[in-house]
Amino acid sequence: MRRWALTIALDPKHELPIFLQLANAIADDIRGGRLKAGEALPGTRELAERLSLNRNTVVAGYEELAAEGWVHTRVGGGTFVSPLAPSATHVAQPASDAPTYALSHSGHSPVHAIAPVKAPRPGSLMLGYSLPDTRLFPATELTRAFRRAIAQRGQSLIGYADPCGHHRLREQLANMLRSTRALPASADCLMVTRSLEQGIDLVARMLLSPGDVVAVEGFGYPPAWSVLRLAGSQLMPIPVDEDGLSVDALEDALTHQSIRAVFLTPHHQFPTTAVMSSARRAKLAALALAHRFAIIEDDYDHEFHYVGKPVLPIASGDGRANTIYIGSLSNLLAPGISTGFVLAPPTVFERLAALRAASDPRSDVAMECAIAELFEDGELLRHVRRMQRAYAARRDALADALRRHLGSALRFRIPDGGMGLWARADDAIDIERWSQEGEREGVQFFSATRYDFHQRVQPYLRLGFSFLNETELEEGVRRMARALARTDTRRSPKTSRPASSWHSPA
Amino acid sequence: MRRWALTIALDPKHELPIFLQLANAIADDIRGGRLKAGEALPGTRELAERLSLNRNTVVAGYEELAAEGWVHTRVGGGTFVSPLAPSATHVAQPASDAPTYALSHSGHSPVHAIAPVKAPRPGSLMLGYSLPDTRLFPATELTRAFRRAIAQRGQSLIGYADPCGHHRLREQLANMLRSTRALPASADCLMVTRSLEQGIDLVARMLLSPGDVVAVEGFGYPPAWSVLRLAGSQLMPIPVDEDGLSVDALEDALTHQSIRAVFLTPHHQFPTTAVMSSARRAKLAALALAHRFAIIEDDYDHEFHYVGKPVLPIASGDGRANTIYIGSLSNLLAPGISTGFVLAPPTVFERLAALRAASDPRSDVAMECAIAELFEDGELLRHVRRMQRAYAARRDALADALRRHLGSALRFRIPDGGMGLWARADDAIDIERWSQEGEREGVQFFSATRYDFHQRVQPYLRLGFSFLNETELEEGVRRMARALARTDTRRSPKTSRPASSWHSPA
Repeated sequence: MRRWALTIALDPKHELPIFLQLANAIADDIRGGRLKAGEALPGTRELAERLSLNRNTVVAGYEELAAEGWVHTRVGGGTFVSPLAPSATHVAQPASDAPTYALSHSGHSPVHAIAPVKAPRPGSLMLGYSLPDTRLFPATELTRAFRRAIAQRGQSLIGYADPCGHHRLREQLANMLRSTRALPASADCLMVTRSLEQGIDLVARMLLSPGDVVAVEGFGYPPAWSVLRLAGSQLMPIPVDEDGLSVDALEDALTHQSIRAVFLTPHHQFPTTAVMSSARRAKLAALALAHRFAIIEDDYDHEFHYVGKPVLPIASGDGRANTIYIGSLSNLLAPGISTGFVLAPPTVFERLAALRAASDPRSDVAMECAIAELFEDGELLRHVRRMQRAYAARRDALADALRRHLGSALRFRIPDGGMGLWARADDAIDIERWSQEGEREGVQFFSATRYDFHQRVQPYLRLGFSFLNETELEEGVRRMARALARTDTRRSPKTSRPASSWHSPA
Repeated sequence: MRRWALTIALDPKHELPIFLQLANAIADDIRGGRLKAGEALPGTRELAERLSLNRNTVVAGYEELAAEGWVHTRVGGGTFVSPLAPSATHVAQPASDAPTYALSHSGHSPVHAIAPVKAPRPGSLMLGYSLPDTRLFPATELTRAFRRAIAQRGQSLIGYADPCGHHRLREQLANMLRSTRALPASADCLMVTRSLEQGIDLVARMLLSPGDVVAVEGFGYPPAWSVLRLAGSQLMPIPVDEDGLSVDALEDALTHQSIRAVFLTPHHQFPTTAVMSSARRAKLAALALAHRFAIIEDDYDHEFHYVGKPVLPIASGDGRANTIYIGSLSNLLAPGISTGFVLAPPTVFERLAALRAASDPRSDVAMECAIAELFEDGELLRHVRRMQRAYAARRDALADALRRHLGSALRFRIPDGGMGLWARADDAIDIERWSQEGEREGVQFFSATRYDFHQRVQPYLRLGFSFLNETELEEGVRRMARALARTDTRRSPKTSRPASSWHSPA
C-alpha cells in the first residue's frame, strides 16, 4: 500500500453490504483529500488480505467506485483515483467575469425543470424511478455491434451523415413501427433524435409561437412541460382519470380557448399508467381535425405491455394526419443510449428535418449503425421479449408484496403495461413523512406531488417496478411498511375506507 | 453463387479503380432489384475466382458497399444485401394525411441551410471539403475505450447522467482548454454538446430574441448562419480580410445599429483561414464590453496550427467576460463522433445548462467516457500530434502541387493552420465552369460563392487538404489543371496580373 494510510471501519452488522461500506469509506478518503487524484489504490488481493475480506467483495467495491466516477482502471491494470473525481476542485471564475450583456427572455430556465435523476443512495432501494434495469441491458451485444460498425463503416464516420439519422436505423425503426404498431411509418418521415426530449423540442419549435396554448395531462411528465414552455407556449392542464386524458374536459376548454396542440401519453399514461380508451382516442382525433390542433403523442414505453395486444397509437388511426408521434429506445436499451424518434406526415416532417439540420446536423453514426445491427440480428427483438417477461414478473411481485406488507394502506389496479404502478394512499397517511421515514429505512419513493401540474399534495404514489428485481422489490416494500409503522397515523390504515375511482385534481 | 446471376463488366483501363467498379456494378444490381434485400453475396474468394481478381480487390469492393449501406456482414460471416439498402421502397403516406393545423413561423426552414455534406462521387477526388481524414481516425483505440466504458460503467448508463456531459469528459476538456489555450476553463462552466451546431443553437436561444441583430463574417460558415437565424435574429455581414473580421467596419456599424452578438472564427477564419490579429482581438473585446454585446467565438479547429504557438482565444483575454467559447472534437476524431463543447462564465452557463437540461437532458454517457479515456490514456494527445504532422505535410503538398500545375491561375498564402487553403483565381477564370469541368475530370472543388453571405460570384476558392493524402492531392491538382485547360479563358492564366491583397465584398 503506497502513500494511502488505510482507515476503514467495516461493520458486518450494518445494513449496508460490506462492498458498499468499503466503497463509501474510500470515497470519503478521496473527498477528504487523503487519497489524491492519480494515486493508486491497493490491489484487490492486497486489500482483501489486509481487511480479511473475500477478494470479490473488494472487486465489487472498486467497481462501485468506478461506476460513481471516483476511480478508474488503467489498461496496464491497477485502479487509480480519477483526476476528475467528484471532489476535484474547480478553477473559480474571477468575479470580474460578469458579462455586460443581457440575456433573452426565452432563455429563462423553465419553471418545471425538475432535479435530474440521481443515483439511488448506496444501499437504498429505489422504488421512485421508472427506469429500465441496466443489469438486463445487452451490453456485450451492443459493444460488439458498435465495434463492427466502426470497423466496417469507418468511412461513413466521415460525417456525410443524414441529420435525420442513419438510413439503416431509420429503416429498422420504421419497420418496427409498421409491424408492431400499425403506424404508417416510412423511413422518409422518421427522424432519429438524440433523446425523447429533443424530439419534443423540435416539434415545439416547429409548431408553437409565444403565447400559444398547449393542453397537457394534469398528472404528467414535468420534463415534457419544460420543453414545451421553451417555445414560449402556455400550458393548460386537463384532468386524467382511469381512461386517460378527459377528452370531455378538453372539449369544454375548446369552447372558450383555442388550443394549438395537445401533448399526451395515451398508451401508458405517465404517471397514472392509465390506458386511454379507444372511444376517447377517436373523439380526440376528431376534435384535432375539427379544431385544427396537433396531437403530440408520446409513446415512451410502448413495448412494455403485458396484457394481450397493446392498443394501437392514435397516430395509426383516423387522427394520424394531425398526430406527431414520438418515442424512444432508451427504456428498451439504457437511458445512456438515448435514441429517440419522431414520426410525422411528409409536409410536417420536412419542416422538422430542416430544423434538425440547422440546430444539430450531426448524428451518432457509429451508435446508430450498432443499434441498427441489433435490429438486423434480431437481438433487439429478443431483448424486448426478455424485458417484457422480466418486467411483467416484477410488476406482479411488487403488487403481491404491497398487498402482503401494506394491506389497505395502498389501493391500486395492476397496470396492463408500463414500468410503474399507480397507487392511492389511505387518506390518513402523510406520504411526505412516510417518504422521509423511508429514506431512513433504506427505501426511496416519492408522492405524486411532483407529477401534479400544480405540484399540490396528492394522495397518490407512483412505484416503479422495472428498476429492481423481485427480491429487491420485496425488500423495498418491507422497508416501506417499516417506515409507515414509524409515521403516526391518526387512523390505522387497516380501517381505512376503500378508495373509490380517482380523478386528478387538475 | 446463389440466385444472383453475375453481370459485371470490369474495365482495367477505366479511370475508376476495379474495386469501385465492382462496388458500383453490385450497387446497380441492388438498385435494379436483381439483388434482393437479405440475399447473400458470393464469398469474396469465390467471386475473386470467377472474376479472376485479387481477393483483396473484392474485399475492398464489399467494404465500400458496406460503407455506403448497400450490404452488411453477419456475425456468422457472409455478406448480405441490407434490408434497408438506399433503394428500398418506402410506404407512401396517403395524401389524406395533410394536417389541418398551421405551423409556427419560427419553424421555417432557414435560408442558409446548405446541402448536407455528401460522399464524394466514387473515384472522384474531393478538394472541396475541409473534413478530417477518417483513415487517420483512431478507431481501434476508441472502440476499445468504448468497450471498457460499457463494461466498467454499465451502471452509469442508467442515465442519471448530467445533461452537461459526463464529469470525466468535462474535466478532461477543461484541462485541455486550460493547458493548451490558457482559457479560464472549469468543468463547472463547460458543457459537452452533441455537435458544434447544438452549442451555437443553445447560445442563440439563450441570448437572442426575434429581431436582435447578430454580426457575422462576410465570408463565413453558412450552417452557423442558419442556427443563428432559428432564434429569429437578423444577421449583419461584416467584411473579413487577411487579418480576419474588420473590427473597424464593426465599429462603424455600431454607430447606427445596436448589435446583440458577434459570431466569428478568429483562429483560422472560415473559409479564408485568416488568423485574426491580436490588435483586432483586443479592440473587439473592448467594443463588446462597451457596447454590451456578446462574442460567440467559434474555435472549431484550434489544434490544427502548424506555425509556432497558436494565438490564444479571445475568451482567454480581457474580453472573456463577454465571450462564449465553442468548439468541437469532431475535426480531431471524426464528424460521426460529434462531440462539441461550450465554455461560458458561470452566470451565463447556468442559463445554458437549464436550456440543455430541458431541451436535451440526456448525454451519450458511454461515448463520453470512451473519449475521456482516450484523454486519460494520452491517446488523444498522441492523435493530435499525428494529425498535426500529417496535415502540415498535406498543406505543403497541396501548395506545392498548385504552384507546379496551376502556375499563376491561383494566388494564395500558405495558411498558418486549419484544414484548407484560400486561393484567389485569376480574373479571367470562370470558376463555376472550371468546377464543372473538374467533375468530368474526377475532381470536386467549389467556388467561394457558397461562403459569401450574399452568395455572390467570387474569384476565390477554398481547397481542403486534410481530407486527402499527398498522392491524392497531387492527382487532384493535376485533374484541376486538365479541367482548367478545357475551360476557354479569354486571357491565358500565365499573363494574368498579380492578385493584390483581397477583401471580402460583404
